[in-house]
Amino acid sequence: MSHRLRPSPIRAILDRQRAPGILSLAGGLPAPGLFPLASLAEAARRAAAEVATWQYAGSCGLPDLRAWIAERLRRRGVATRPEQVLITNGSQHALLLAALALLEPGGCVAVEAPGYPGAYQALAVTGASVVGLGEGVERLRALAKRRRIDLLHCMPSGQNPTGRTLDGAQRVAYAAACAAAGVCVLEDDAYGELWYEEQPAQPLAAMHADCLLAGSFSKILAPGLRLGWLRAPEPRLGDLTLALQASALHANGLAQATVLAWLGRQDLEAHLVRLRVAYRERRDALCAALAARWPLPPPCPRCGMFLWLPLPSGWTGGAFAEAALAAGVAVVPGGGCHPDGGPDDHIRLCFATETPKRLVMAAGILGGLVARSSDPPAIAAQSA
Amino acid sequence: MSHRLRPSPIRAILDRQRAPGILSLAGGLPAPGLFPLASLAEAARRAAAEVATWQYAGSCGLPDLRAWIAERLRRRGVATRPEQVLITNGSQHALLLAALALLEPGGCVAVEAPGYPGAYQALAVTGASVVGLGEGVERLRALAKRRRIDLLHCMPSGQNPTGRTLDGAQRVAYAAACAAAGVCVLEDDAYGELWYEEQPAQPLAAMHADCLLAGSFSKILAPGLRLGWLRAPEPRLGDLTLALQASALHANGLAQATVLAWLGRQDLEAHLVRLRVAYRERRDALCAALAARWPLPPPCPRCGMFLWLPLPSGWTGGAFAEAALAAGVAVVPGGGCHPDGGPDDHIRLCFATETPKRLVMAAGILGGLVARSSDPPAIAAQSA
Repeated sequence: MSHRLRPSPIRAILDRQRAPGILSLAGGLPAPGLFPLASLAEAARRAAAEVATWQYAGSCGLPDLRAWIAERLRRRGVATRPEQVLITNGSQHALLLAALALLEPGGCVAVEAPGYPGAYQALAVTGASVVGLGEGVERLRALAKRRRIDLLHCMPSGQNPTGRTLDGAQRVAYAAACAAAGVCVLEDDAYGELWYEEQPAQPLAAMHADCLLAGSFSKILAPGLRLGWLRAPEPRLGDLTLALQASALHANGLAQATVLAWLGRQDLEAHLVRLRVAYRERRDALCAALAARWPLPPPCPRCGMFLWLPLPSGWTGGAFAEAALAAGVAVVPGGGCHPDGGPDDHIRLCFATETPKRLVMAAGILGGLVARSSDPPAIAAQSA
Repeated sequence: MSHRLRPSPIRAILDRQRAPGILSLAGGLPAPGLFPLASLAEAARRAAAEVATWQYAGSCGLPDLRAWIAERLRRRGVATRPEQVLITNGSQHALLLAALALLEPGGCVAVEAPGYPGAYQALAVTGASVVGLGEGVERLRALAKRRRIDLLHCMPSGQNPTGRTLDGAQRVAYAAACAAAGVCVLEDDAYGELWYEEQPAQPLAAMHADCLLAGSFSKILAPGLRLGWLRAPEPRLGDLTLALQASALHANGLAQATVLAWLGRQDLEAHLVRLRVAYRERRDALCAALAARWPLPPPCPRCGMFLWLPLPSGWTGGAFAEAALAAGVAVVPGGGCHPDGGPDDHIRLCFATETPKRLVMAAGILGGLVARSSDPPAIAAQSA
């Protein structure tokens, strides 16, 4: 296996959690019961009745869809012309385009650690080094002094896997540090619409000129669309468009037309409110159940789909995930969320997929595993 | 611009040929009138009504679709288990996967020259050298003696842009040369179902163990599906699957379910017969019109969508394509179909998009440009 091709612990466990009866807290899967199934089916029917849906199309995406995304970004403070928006086959594809256009063999892409393993997969393909940064801007400044950083991938809102959301002041400091170091940022905003108390502060792309912004319809409409976007500063567009052509010619025509048809007749804002209400209820159910059953206090994310749960000593994430799966709960071991073999002392839980009742069941099973641990003194010490 | 990112002369002209009134002989666009629009729309409606269509899915594609493709390949003599088939976002994506999995920076990928510029785009992304081979196996043997060839891209059936189809004996010789040189082959079979006199001989993948085979629903159903496949030998599957995850997580869910729904109720063989009859009529109309109006004899391809037309001296493909577009006909200049600045002395014509009547109009316009050429003696000499 080439060092450019990395495995994903999430994809690996997704294949295993499909077994019947397993409680799915592993993949970042939206709740299927919240898909607007009838209106999506109606939109697909209308899209499919148009002959243009089925032909080859322009490289960068349907003009009306690019304009819709540009307008939405402008309302978040990110100055964007429609020509700056490329439609992609999901935001994973958007990350790939950034890698193909900006990263050379031997180059350097900085990533959050822990962070999203799928991003590491995409960003490694041209042979650049994937270097993990911890929290805060100090690590970024220190790395930038040591070597040139060609790209920095980060998720300011509802970070995967920690659920952390940067506040406005943190974003200003982050953007300033990137500008000072001359670092191009790839802002991954897959979860920014799923906020539960208040909308996150402005995107980094509103604060830093050399910032790409990747977004997705997967979490706000449906993953099966495999449709996302990449907003880029003008000077980056030429190379990104060539990367888009090289990788796929253009994004899926049926999915693009379906989303446009859906947006034309449906109220996305009302749908987002439904999602936020439902996911907040799930988050609260899981957090409350874990607070009662888990020895270490669980964090309660304000955005996104994930909870990053510290393990009592005596457990690795890998061992815990195996034990949990055997007990009927799929979780992601935290070690794989580091780009270069970081500590495997957390698990990632997704609270979006299952109902509140089943999340409480899962929390009970996970807590029971820890209570039966062969290392009770260490647990007691840490939970004190 | 990185040397890994190459422009495509086809994508460039596609954007320009959308102007109203232009006769489209440039892009390899299927005739939209031959899309099975009603049955595709019905299939999309049924696919969209299933909740599983909209969720994340397995990396490699829907099992039933992989099985259908494997069975079809087996009937062509290519031993294939369903697990050897990866579903991709069009065959362009399949070519990208081969590049990501098999090509390292500084490596070497051999391609046909002239050949498909989109393949050069995909195969260059990891920084391997794209080296053009002319016709025949001698050039392959000579190159393999000089340097290691990590991958060879070729289109044995209805080659893009020449329309050439290798016969059985040529394929046997080609496969033997690749096996002797230890070269992994990427067989691009995008056009293999569009044959007009007799079905092409067995794929190279039936004759050479280390052969990937890329196929597509774009030319047999509709390009807007952006759905293709990559069949690979077992030892290549691990890396190709990681490349698929890194680039897109998995192929479009709506498109996969739509194709499966279509195949379940429709008769693909009957549809292919309709396509072959219609495209043969178009090919014959264009070839006959050019035979009457073009100074150099046009080839008459037995498979695919393209006619590779030699230009009279005095013309470059670039100059001719500009003149043709100004006169209302979009064609692809041949120079861009070479990976490394080969001779620009042909144009590529697609006979699939326009009706026979409009193809005859186009041939008249193209012939008229040559008749008005400032260099009539050279034309006369060559056409004698």
